[in-house]
Amino acid sequence: MEYPNNDNNGLPRATRDVSLHELSTRLAEFSQVRGWDQYHSPRNLLLALVGEVGELSEIFQWKGEVGKGLPNWSSAEKEHLEEELSDVLLYLVLLADVCGLDLGQAALAKIIKNAIKYPVITPHNNDHSQNPTNSK
Amino acid sequence: MEYPNNDNNGLPRATRDVSLHELSTRLAEFSQVRGWDQYHSPRNLLLALVGEVGELSEIFQWKGEVGKGLPNWSSAEKEHLEEELSDVLLYLVLLADVCGLDLGQAALAKIIKNAIKYPVITPHNNDHSQNPTNSK
Amino acid sequence: MEYPNNDNNGLPRATRDVSLHELSTRLAEFSQVRGWDQYHSPRNLLLALVGEVGELSEIFQWKGEVGKGLPNWSSAEKEHLEEELSDVLLYLVLLADVCGLDLGQAALAKIIKNAIKYPVITPHNNDHSQNPTNSK
Amino acid sequence: MEYPNNDNNGLPRATRDVSLHELSTRLAEFSQVRGWDQYHSPRNLLLALVGEVGELSEIFQWKGEVGKGLPNWSSAEKEHLEEELSDVLLYLVLLADVCGLDLGQAALAKIIKNAIKYPVITPHNNDHSQNPTNSK
Repeated sequence: MEYPNNDNNGLPRATRDVSLHELSTRLAEFSQVRGWDQYHSPRNLLLALVGEVGELSEIFQWKGEVGKGLPNWSSAEKEHLEEELSDVLLYLVLLADVCGLDLGQAALAKIIKNAIKYPVITPHNNDHSQNPTNSK
Repeated sequence: MEYPNNDNNGLPRATRDVSLHELSTRLAEFSQVRGWDQYHSPRNLLLALVGEVGELSEIFQWKGEVGKGLPNWSSAEKEHLEEELSDVLLYLVLLADVCGLDLGQAALAKIIKNAIKYPVITPHNNDHSQNPTNSK
Repeated sequence: MEYPNNDNNGLPRATRDVSLHELSTRLAEFSQVRGWDQYHSPRNLLLALVGEVGELSEIFQWKGEVGKGLPNWSSAEKEHLEEELSDVLLYLVLLADVCGLDLGQAALAKIIKNAIKYPVITPHNNDHSQNPTNSK
Repeated sequence: MEYPNNDNNGLPRATRDVSLHELSTRLAEFSQVRGWDQYHSPRNLLLALVGEVGELSEIFQWKGEVGKGLPNWSSAEKEHLEEELSDVLLYLVLLADVCGLDLGQAALAKIIKNAIKYPVITPHNNDHSQNPTNSK
């Protein structure tokens, strides 16, 4: 199978922008050719997601507070973290797909909804009650 | 702020393909103008992610097994689910960003790694030991 | 209602009744002699708990709906489940302890609070709006 | 090592020692009289547990590192935390019960297993490879 639009010719490697539909398409093919679709009920995928969130948490569990950019983390630790972040994302994409929902659209809509819910504070509409604790 | 590349002119609404970089960019702006960056340490975001996974789980908790496509779910329930799936994704994107990692690249790399780890079974290389329980 | 005390003399095996204080005491000694107390900050323990909840979820993730009593589970699977349930409990006890809270007392109080919040439905005060979805 | 029994006569308040069987018994009665047993399948309870772990995490999510004993937390915050810790415990007890497992026994056995797995380091058997990261 060919994935078009890999038009990052000449750009530095890390800037190829991956879309949620691309991940969906690749995962659908991956599961289908292996016969794994049969296991992908919503609650199975949700529990698999929880399992991966657990593995993600294990990476951070004994570290105390961790600085932005992961100072002093080894390359191996960062790669491990990339894998666990990815596993969470991949199960999230699979879960949205099996539910028939468009995750990317939904996420954009949620950002817009949050932008309305939490208006930007300026010197003229300073609302000290606003804080991210309420950001649901 | 303008987001370019909305080149889904004429396509049905739900097919606009959202990328992970776009979500990152929008979230970065969202947080920056609200002064919320200061709260976005890796472990804070991780715990926020766990909180959202909890809310996602609550949607499914009393339902027993749920069929693909969410038969018999109301529109309101599906919208609620879209919001919680989105919240998980948005915190995951923020977490990857604050760690300095490219989530989309990492996810693609993980799919490729899994494809190698779990080769497709054909009649000639039938490996019955393969099953998704091991898919980490 | 009377809750008999812990002297399970003459009852069948497996009825030795373990208390939360006993677990606290044993865990405190366990950690102290190994010098692990230094790692037991509240958020470290919380993330360790999340990690164990992930492992617990992995046991159930590909099984579809599971019947009460775990029909058809092997002894090995049940032992594995016992270990993961235990790990969640032990980190929960450690977390409560490091926060200076009495988990057993708190749990009893929560049951009483819930009993008031969700009064028993009888033919004379039948409230169909009551259901466990709201049980927080 | 001796663990004194549960008769905390004469000890200060908050030392009433709650046992896991007592919680089981109370929860069984609570659910039975409300007709909620029908919802208590293993995976329903597991997802409810994950939901409560999410609520527990939300308490800690924007706080940065938190000190032992929760310095500077208000009484209201501590009570909220007690409730969420309790909710996790109560669903854990219900889950163990519906699986037919004895949570207290299992937890004691796990402590013993861990004590063997991680022998105490003394000046004569100093094993620097030992650390809690491996404590599963």
